[in-house]
Amino acid sequence: MQIITTVKEMKGIVKNHKALGETIGFVPTMGYLHQGHRSLIERARKENDLVVVSIFVNPTQFGANEDFDIYPRDIDRDSQLTREAGGDYIFHPSADEIYPMGYRTYVEVTDITNILCGGSRPGHFKGVTTVVHKLFQIVSPTRNYFGLKDAQQVAVIQTMVEDLFMDIEIVPCPIIREIDGLAMSSRNVYLSDEDRKAALMISRSLFHAKEAVEKGERNIEKIKKMIRYLLSEEPLLKPEYVEAVSFPRLELMDFIEGRVLIALAVKVGKVRLIDNIIVEV
Amino acid sequence: MQIITTVKEMKGIVKNHKALGETIGFVPTMGYLHQGHRSLIERARKENDLVVVSIFVNPTQFGANEDFDIYPRDIDRDSQLTREAGGDYIFHPSADEIYPMGYRTYVEVTDITNILCGGSRPGHFKGVTTVVHKLFQIVSPTRNYFGLKDAQQVAVIQTMVEDLFMDIEIVPCPIIREIDGLAMSSRNVYLSDEDRKAALMISRSLFHAKEAVEKGERNIEKIKKMIRYLLSEEPLLKPEYVEAVSFPRLELMDFIEGRVLIALAVKVGKVRLIDNIIVEV
Repeated sequence: MQIITTVKEMKGIVKNHKALGETIGFVPTMGYLHQGHRSLIERARKENDLVVVSIFVNPTQFGANEDFDIYPRDIDRDSQLTREAGGDYIFHPSADEIYPMGYRTYVEVTDITNILCGGSRPGHFKGVTTVVHKLFQIVSPTRNYFGLKDAQQVAVIQTMVEDLFMDIEIVPCPIIREIDGLAMSSRNVYLSDEDRKAALMISRSLFHAKEAVEKGERNIEKIKKMIRYLLSEEPLLKPEYVEAVSFPRLELMDFIEGRVLIALAVKVGKVRLIDNIIVEV
Repeated sequence: MQIITTVKEMKGIVKNHKALGETIGFVPTMGYLHQGHRSLIERARKENDLVVVSIFVNPTQFGANEDFDIYPRDIDRDSQLTREAGGDYIFHPSADEIYPMGYRTYVEVTDITNILCGGSRPGHFKGVTTVVHKLFQIVSPTRNYFGLKDAQQVAVIQTMVEDLFMDIEIVPCPIIREIDGLAMSSRNVYLSDEDRKAALMISRSLFHAKEAVEKGERNIEKIKKMIRYLLSEEPLLKPEYVEAVSFPRLELMDFIEGRVLIALAVKVGKVRLIDNIIVEV
């Protein structure tokens, strides 16, 4: 397992493997890897000849008042996990390497980036699509592994790939949770014990919603109300949004029909957590 | 020479040639080809194994009050010229093929798209970079041939390619002119005899500017004044802008230094014409 820091070297390595007809599995991350990331790397390992993991805390997807500066970083730990999970290369560039002086080009998906997380984090998805597009050009992946915890991100990137006719496969992978249900996230390390306890209501409210759908509930307004009510039982949780939209098109709907993404974001103190569940009827 | 109309078929053809290790020369156009385009196709023929010419009047790069509907089209004539110049394929998709229902993704270069033609045609370059990016993904070209008549377009696309780390070569090619100096353009067919005569002052003013620089003039304000004065001698010409900027970075400057693009746009009746000259000191 080797760590590569320049675009040029990464491109050269990929080119050599491509010349041999090898497939490339790519797992783009912001580092501070957890079991969720591990599951993506392991799946990439199974399905491809070469596995590249990128670790890049992307400045352009953070808002001015967000946690870019304090976002957790630990490249040594990440290297070990990547090696154990079967990654061949970590691509770990500096911000200047990805955004050299005078960069001016952005890739943007409209409409579906203004709702859910895009509604509360303006510009976030423009940063995401721009950096992911850059990484795609550098790593030239056959298959890309994204966790469904960021379900909107998966939908947005899939839209970008289709709209731009890119020959790249997006592989959405299931959310990995702690034993008690909390969705794994690099941001979970921010949580105090008390916050951590309150945060359990996040996944619990989603499981309840799923159960309600399974029992026949189709009214989205009622489902959202139920989730909000459950979240309100934990005073430490400040809901940012609770929403249900078609997946992967992310269209607003009144009733559950087909595949529906039920997603939410809450603040627990200064920590912003997201979670979701996909139901299908 | 074959005409391809679907993304899928074009991608398939390109893939087969790539698998043989062949290079692909690409000439993206809006059709109604003239000798300027022919020079691009001939050069692509010399330098590549396969030559693809796209003919697509791209709706997203036209403003609401511009000439999209009446832009000249003649696929039979274009086919003949492409065949004669050595093109292997014409890619001639419908608008729905390039922009299917629900497309939402745009590629945008900022800053340098707000000046010159971008200043008078808001959104124009966003349409250009989006469609050129899509075409690049479909045709997967080794080298791309663009005429320097659209010098700003060349600079913008070069910026996009560099910023997004795309493995694509941009080959800027010289402006081709009529014997009397008028830069070749598909829009020249719009000109009445009287307009056509007046339009000669466009290139003439640029040649004068070049001569002045060669004689030692470095003051850009003076050069612009001279061009404006010459244009004003033809009452049929309504200048839209006269500008001089560094090339290819397109930075405003006070004095000629290094490579400088002297560019202008004028209206002749309803017809908008552009021309430019690059000087180097």
